Amino acid sequence: MRAELATIIEQGRGEAPADLVLKGGRVFDLVTGELVESDVAICGDTIVGVFEPGYEGRREIDCSGRVLVPGFIDTHLHIESSAVTPFEFDRCVGPRGITTAICDPHEIANVAGLTGIRYFLDASARTVMDIRVQLSSCVPSTHMETAGARLEAEDLAPLMDHPRVIGLAEFMNFPGVIHRDPGVMAKLEAFRGRHVDGHCPLLTGRDLNAYIAAGIRTEHEATTAGEALEKLRKGMRVLIREGSVSKDLHALAPLLTERHSPYLCLCTDDRNPLDIAEHGHLDYMIRTAIELGAPALAVYRAASLSAAEAFGLKDRGLIAPGKRADIAVIDTLEGCHAETVICGGVVVDDAAFAARELIAPVARHSVKARRVSASDFRTAGNRAETPVIGILPGKIITEHLTEEIAPVDGDKRPDLDRDLVKIAVIERHGKNGNMATGFVRGFGLKAGAIASTVCHDHHNIAVVGADYADMALAANRLGEIEGGFVVVRDGEVLAEVALPVAGLMSLEPFEVVRDALVELRAAAASLGVVLEEPFLQLAFLALPVIPHLKITDHGMVDVDRFEVMS
Amino acid sequence: MRAELATIIEQGRGEAPADLVLKGGRVFDLVTGELVESDVAICGDTIVGVFEPGYEGRREIDCSGRVLVPGFIDTHLHIESSAVTPFEFDRCVGPRGITTAICDPHEIANVAGLTGIRYFLDASARTVMDIRVQLSSCVPSTHMETAGARLEAEDLAPLMDHPRVIGLAEFMNFPGVIHRDPGVMAKLEAFRGRHVDGHCPLLTGRDLNAYIAAGIRTEHEATTAGEALEKLRKGMRVLIREGSVSKDLHALAPLLTERHSPYLCLCTDDRNPLDIAEHGHLDYMIRTAIELGAPALAVYRAASLSAAEAFGLKDRGLIAPGKRADIAVIDTLEGCHAETVICGGVVVDDAAFAARELIAPVARHSVKARRVSASDFRTAGNRAETPVIGILPGKIITEHLTEEIAPVDGDKRPDLDRDLVKIAVIERHGKNGNMATGFVRGFGLKAGAIASTVCHDHHNIAVVGADYADMALAANRLGEIEGGFVVVRDGEVLAEVALPVAGLMSLEPFEVVRDALVELRAAAASLGVVLEEPFLQLAFLALPVIPHLKITDHGMVDVDRFEVMS
Repeated sequence: MRAELATIIEQGRGEAPADLVLKGGRVFDLVTGELVESDVAICGDTIVGVFEPGYEGRREIDCSGRVLVPGFIDTHLHIESSAVTPFEFDRCVGPRGITTAICDPHEIANVAGLTGIRYFLDASARTVMDIRVQLSSCVPSTHMETAGARLEAEDLAPLMDHPRVIGLAEFMNFPGVIHRDPGVMAKLEAFRGRHVDGHCPLLTGRDLNAYIAAGIRTEHEATTAGEALEKLRKGMRVLIREGSVSKDLHALAPLLTERHSPYLCLCTDDRNPLDIAEHGHLDYMIRTAIELGAPALAVYRAASLSAAEAFGLKDRGLIAPGKRADIAVIDTLEGCHAETVICGGVVVDDAAFAARELIAPVARHSVKARRVSASDFRTAGNRAETPVIGILPGKIITEHLTEEIAPVDGDKRPDLDRDLVKIAVIERHGKNGNMATGFVRGFGLKAGAIASTVCHDHHNIAVVGADYADMALAANRLGEIEGGFVVVRDGEVLAEVALPVAGLMSLEPFEVVRDALVELRAAAASLGVVLEEPFLQLAFLALPVIPHLKITDHGMVDVDRFEVMS
Repeated sequence: MRAELATIIEQGRGEAPADLVLKGGRVFDLVTGELVESDVAICGDTIVGVFEPGYEGRREIDCSGRVLVPGFIDTHLHIESSAVTPFEFDRCVGPRGITTAICDPHEIANVAGLTGIRYFLDASARTVMDIRVQLSSCVPSTHMETAGARLEAEDLAPLMDHPRVIGLAEFMNFPGVIHRDPGVMAKLEAFRGRHVDGHCPLLTGRDLNAYIAAGIRTEHEATTAGEALEKLRKGMRVLIREGSVSKDLHALAPLLTERHSPYLCLCTDDRNPLDIAEHGHLDYMIRTAIELGAPALAVYRAASLSAAEAFGLKDRGLIAPGKRADIAVIDTLEGCHAETVICGGVVVDDAAFAARELIAPVARHSVKARRVSASDFRTAGNRAETPVIGILPGKIITEHLTEEIAPVDGDKRPDLDRDLVKIAVIERHGKNGNMATGFVRGFGLKAGAIASTVCHDHHNIAVVGADYADMALAANRLGEIEGGFVVVRDGEVLAEVALPVAGLMSLEPFEVVRDALVELRAAAASLGVVLEEPFLQLAFLALPVIPHLKITDHGMVDVDRFEVMS
């Protein structure tokens, strides 16, 4: 709660007891790098006293033996990818020390348009965590897919001054930028001088110069140190990402030096509750980066102060007077296990979560796909030479493979010995009933099928299978449960997770979803699937802004040529 | 000139020749610290290409053998203290590589109020350099002086969204902040969440916490490394100042490390054209800091990138795509002698200055003091014990001395053997005709008098003298020349500089003012004055927000008690 300046000054001087004092811990000073024994006095949502003795509080929390660091800022994520609502996400990661999340609601926006973005803006006013929203810039991400909505500059402009809006979210259509697509230019001109986040995997040289010169300030798609360094040197703030599928931390950790740290941030992009439960969130990134040899000062700066600076959040990122009281009380800098978290002066606990005024989710009953049958999964073709999506485990970039698959009775069939299974994308927004099929290698699937309505970014139905009938059952089952994840074998549903909110988010608590995902993963493994996160990996096979070969409801997409293959 | 985004992208990709290309130099990369051989392509006012080969320009400038650094940002200054108009200041320091000046027009505001601030806003739209304006927060600086105007929150609020306004300028009334003066609180509440610059010399401990917690982000009054470090640690961005009188660079240079550099800036506060001609401006600070052992990366960051970050100027501070084309082409990092300067894509040269559309200055005929006579300078008093301002050369802080000065015929007279000379302040805004007298030690004056209308911040007439008749002549002469500086001996004016714009700025070119100041300084020295900058030092003896003993038209001021002495 925001206090009067007069009260802030009074408590800062110690004339009156502070609302809250964190006693006896050591504060990690991200400016000087020192660990300083200090109490921290808080008035309302604001830090008013540090590095001085003698503060007393109406409430005091003993932090002796603990380290106090500024709350963590996730600089780019899609909360939908946690498969729970913003309120459950809040409850799931807040206690780990994440006090600010800069989200791009473009998953729900691709299903429900502005209705989805407004849902996140409304929810963000009611969460304990401070959720900021970037306006989804590329809905749909390209012209080569069918989404549930389309957002143009004139749709986004009215929201640009909303107090919880930072700017324009990841500008994925980088070919549209450098080739000056009119709709793209309209958006960039509308948001000129404001924060525009980037997304340009593997873009380099003068094309990268042009993309940045268009006003794009931050970027999170660098997968190698060299790519990140070029972006850094050219003035971008680089967001090091560790998602459930896209894992760049090990490759980029060497850049996390004290010298670079003011210009680096951390983000999770897409991370599911299973991963969060098993490994953690930003806390996992922090302890891992330190394990990998990055200096603690550099890592904690990237996790808070530098992130605040990069996104113009001048009111946070340090444990200092006048800053938002966003503080994680952790065991050690290396461990980064939060024992107490303060967010905007509020102790992040069950009482705080219980006090939230929840709102009903939007975008129910959004799966409007036609029912399909086994024969719909046949792939015609007269040449044996066939493009195949090659999965790179732990990466969303794919290989563009070519395999000989001879048609049998006019159908190119799965070849399990060569790990060539069928993949299909079925339009599910009730727009056109499109359906495309193709081949993928890397799942290790030996029987049955798996299907999902989490399918970036258009979120149509994606199905991978060894058996056409099981693929049909899996796809049709998603229509019955309002979307989600399904595993099918021999005409039977082995496991499923319903995601009735836009076909992306569960109505259940995150713990329930986490447990369901464990069963789901086991069921997928029983089909022979070798991938750690098969459903998230599947979800990115339909994203045509990530190289090299993808599939949408329009067909197989050669991302390098940025065109649907004939 | 601002280009279309489409043109920026086209030139960034090298599809068309750039408007301007700087060829063959080495770019100092302030992110990685590397010196990289690279051409720089510019479109309109924006950098569009760097670190890539193959850019061609409609105009090209050979920079071989030179180093390119981002243009320098002076983060806090009073342009009036250069004694010339903003247009002459532009011409004076632009060629040295200063491309952004964040000024506080509070000198002219104390004389002419909003009229003075508007003059700076209008002028700043017409200079080659990008001048940004902070709204003067303390006019007058305290209740213990008579100024020509008074600015309250409701006067400043209408200007807060002006495109060239950054926020609230140095909040000098720090006692008013920590004691919660109503007028002070109204200003802080009105600008809450915006940039508020600070000014709190020697403030420490919980009082400093309270001052910062009130929302004050930046500060330039630290005179020791310890003071600056406390402010840094408590989240302030510290602006290292090297003015003509206040010289803090040597004391604070040890803080200019790579670790601290993202959070440090440089400023000149008050610097006259003589100093600029003899030593330089920010360029002097840069080469001196490096001489003192600060790493070049830290120094150049503080001079540009960190300054831009501290004040939210996201469009500058780096030689990178999308940033303003503010570039200094210098001889070496150590020398920092600018040979070519680009500001907003414009080459800073005589043609650029000639192309400016000048505007007429405001606040003419502002010296409205009554004529005084020798007897007005008598100082009554029955106790010999007398407070004496002790000058600390090169500092604006003074000593509070006490000397025995026995009244003779009811008047305490100068005692040249003890270097005790008379000082007087005469109200000159036509408000009340106040006049106060007292004693000062440190000028070394042996005869005559010196007088000035540059007298922080109220800019009344300040006179220092060994002879009452000469003091009267000097004060009265200032009324005849619309203010300025005067040196008098034996009833004769030895030298003078007229400053008809608000009694602060000359109508002459800076070269003329510089030469006149040389003569003025020589004339002062002929009176025995031992101070290097007697008139600037004099100007600060009347500023009651700087410890410890000062004098205004209300009387001698005990700054530590923040009261006029009885």
